[in-house]
Amino acid sequence: MAAQTILFDFTLDKDKTADEEARLQVAKILRNELEQLFPQLELAYSMESPENGYFAVLHENKDTVITCRIFQHGLLTLNVEYFLPDGKEPIISFDTMRTMELILRQKFDSDRSKYLPPIKRGGYIDIYMTSSDERIIEYDIDKVVFEARSPFQKIQIMHSKTLGNMLLLDELQNIAESDLIYTETLMCRGVENYEGKEICILGGGDGALLYELLKENPKHVVMLEIDELVMQTCNKYLNVICGDVLEKRKSDQYEIIVGDCVEYLKKFIAEGRKFDYVFGDLTDIPITDAPEGETWDFIRTIFEHSFKVLKPDGKYLTHGNGSTCKVQLRLFEEQLNLLRPKVKFTTTKAFVPSFMEEWLFYQVTFA
Amino acid sequence: MAAQTILFDFTLDKDKTADEEARLQVAKILRNELEQLFPQLELAYSMESPENGYFAVLHENKDTVITCRIFQHGLLTLNVEYFLPDGKEPIISFDTMRTMELILRQKFDSDRSKYLPPIKRGGYIDIYMTSSDERIIEYDIDKVVFEARSPFQKIQIMHSKTLGNMLLLDELQNIAESDLIYTETLMCRGVENYEGKEICILGGGDGALLYELLKENPKHVVMLEIDELVMQTCNKYLNVICGDVLEKRKSDQYEIIVGDCVEYLKKFIAEGRKFDYVFGDLTDIPITDAPEGETWDFIRTIFEHSFKVLKPDGKYLTHGNGSTCKVQLRLFEEQLNLLRPKVKFTTTKAFVPSFMEEWLFYQVTFA
Repeated sequence: MAAQTILFDFTLDKDKTADEEARLQVAKILRNELEQLFPQLELAYSMESPENGYFAVLHENKDTVITCRIFQHGLLTLNVEYFLPDGKEPIISFDTMRTMELILRQKFDSDRSKYLPPIKRGGYIDIYMTSSDERIIEYDIDKVVFEARSPFQKIQIMHSKTLGNMLLLDELQNIAESDLIYTETLMCRGVENYEGKEICILGGGDGALLYELLKENPKHVVMLEIDELVMQTCNKYLNVICGDVLEKRKSDQYEIIVGDCVEYLKKFIAEGRKFDYVFGDLTDIPITDAPEGETWDFIRTIFEHSFKVLKPDGKYLTHGNGSTCKVQLRLFEEQLNLLRPKVKFTTTKAFVPSFMEEWLFYQVTFA
Repeated sequence: MAAQTILFDFTLDKDKTADEEARLQVAKILRNELEQLFPQLELAYSMESPENGYFAVLHENKDTVITCRIFQHGLLTLNVEYFLPDGKEPIISFDTMRTMELILRQKFDSDRSKYLPPIKRGGYIDIYMTSSDERIIEYDIDKVVFEARSPFQKIQIMHSKTLGNMLLLDELQNIAESDLIYTETLMCRGVENYEGKEICILGGGDGALLYELLKENPKHVVMLEIDELVMQTCNKYLNVICGDVLEKRKSDQYEIIVGDCVEYLKKFIAEGRKFDYVFGDLTDIPITDAPEGETWDFIRTIFEHSFKVLKPDGKYLTHGNGSTCKVQLRLFEEQLNLLRPKVKFTTTKAFVPSFMEEWLFYQVTFA
């Protein structure tokens, strides 16, 4: 079940939209052309105002409803909306849209026009996601593979035709089968040497980081993940990126502890246990304009405890956010700069396929 | 100059949308809630039909226009549209949208709702592009760096905040500073050995392929590109991916010939000149359902001539299309299968950042 909304817009010469008479002339042209495509088109309503231009509602059998605005600034928008039952073909094909755009553009003598692919609304699968800087991205998701709610979060596995299975936590993209680059950039593969090293992963429930680290022959990895169900889910649906590391909880090379990482960090601090590398593979940096609220408190707590279990020449490696999120990244860096003893950091970037954007990663050491 | 259109939708219990009375009840709730946000809201028009449900137009000072449809199948769509002058802040912030969605969802007792980031319409820079399978993708383009029309095509350099400069030919994404992976997958870097080899590039005007090939110490590369202006443009704005290879037209290692590649292929055939590798770095495979029309004729011509200049153990390497475009890729492969002498092929895939999708590449040899 879904409605389809098709959006067209045309930039017009301002003379054509400057006053009521001119706008009515444009509206008449539009209606004539639309009648070619929708023979039973009726004008249901229109309104005019000197400041806000012309607005009209047209429809065919009250089924396909078309609204049109002609702004005095030289812009015409056209919204076409109709209900498309499951399994039915759209009433307006891509060819028709293209033709409609070209003909109207010519009739309006417009030098700029645009139409967007139909926006599908009300579908069971949510195919529209948003980048960290609030851009709209339509995914080629064709199946909800798994969906459940753990005590901690909503867990979904969606299947994308090209990205493979994708893990979503609370409806945010987390990692997909396509995203080896994410893990490799987080761990600075080829730059850091993990052989014989002691490593602690905070979070990392998808298992991808643990899987890749174990290939580099570390002495031991301990992973602290709170959500058992995330691990079970990834073990079942994301083997491409996590292999079989989530099959068992303990081996000579690693241990997965299911629990609150802060509690275990406190325990490690009390024991004097230290690591060469600590990975922050937890919640994303929140998109806020001020470093306030629960998530920022959590980030600060993680920082403070992590650096207490790090050897003097150890490294704290973590993901940041979309590289366009300058404000959030600056807030994150300000938190790092508040730490005592002082730390310094470098950053790396990678375009992560399932995020459809470039992501920033941090490498933090004692200053 | 741009209009903003914000789209919300809510899935409702079918009881709430089954008949006129129920729909009017929902419409009343909606109007009450919208009045909190738009105190001067007026109902301008409404219509009802048993088959097509409820439709209404509301507005505030004829400036912000809100249309609403309540489909009998249990779906409510809400479209908010207003004009946003350059440099002004949107009247509805992301926080407001989120709050609006949450409150309405609760009031409607809806178990599924969605809003999309505002769609910007009529802007000078076209930030919405379409994937090969007609999905909508919003880019973070912030500047038109260059725009011109050559005798062959429209050439644009757009700047993306994260992808760097992007080359668009006839408004289609071609290559960007972020796309080394495109060139490396096309040339099968690490798999093919170009040392001491003779190579012919058909097209390749962005210079990226030539630049990367020259790093592998080939005997000689000849590049046949028809559009001088594309090369001048890329030499100026895409040095990150083409280095300085477009600075001069000839060196000991390569020659760039500005002209129709088919003419030169004919000349090479007449001379008996042969290559170890021929690269098809020309027009994309057209998105059509049948292998007809000028572009397909061109593709067939290129195939026929290319294999005549290929050594018996030579390879023809080329890009295909988005890997979701099964029909077009099959048509392309059918054309390959028609060739005599017979050829066989393998494929590789890569997610190309500036395409925001996975692309398929072909490696063709004599069977």
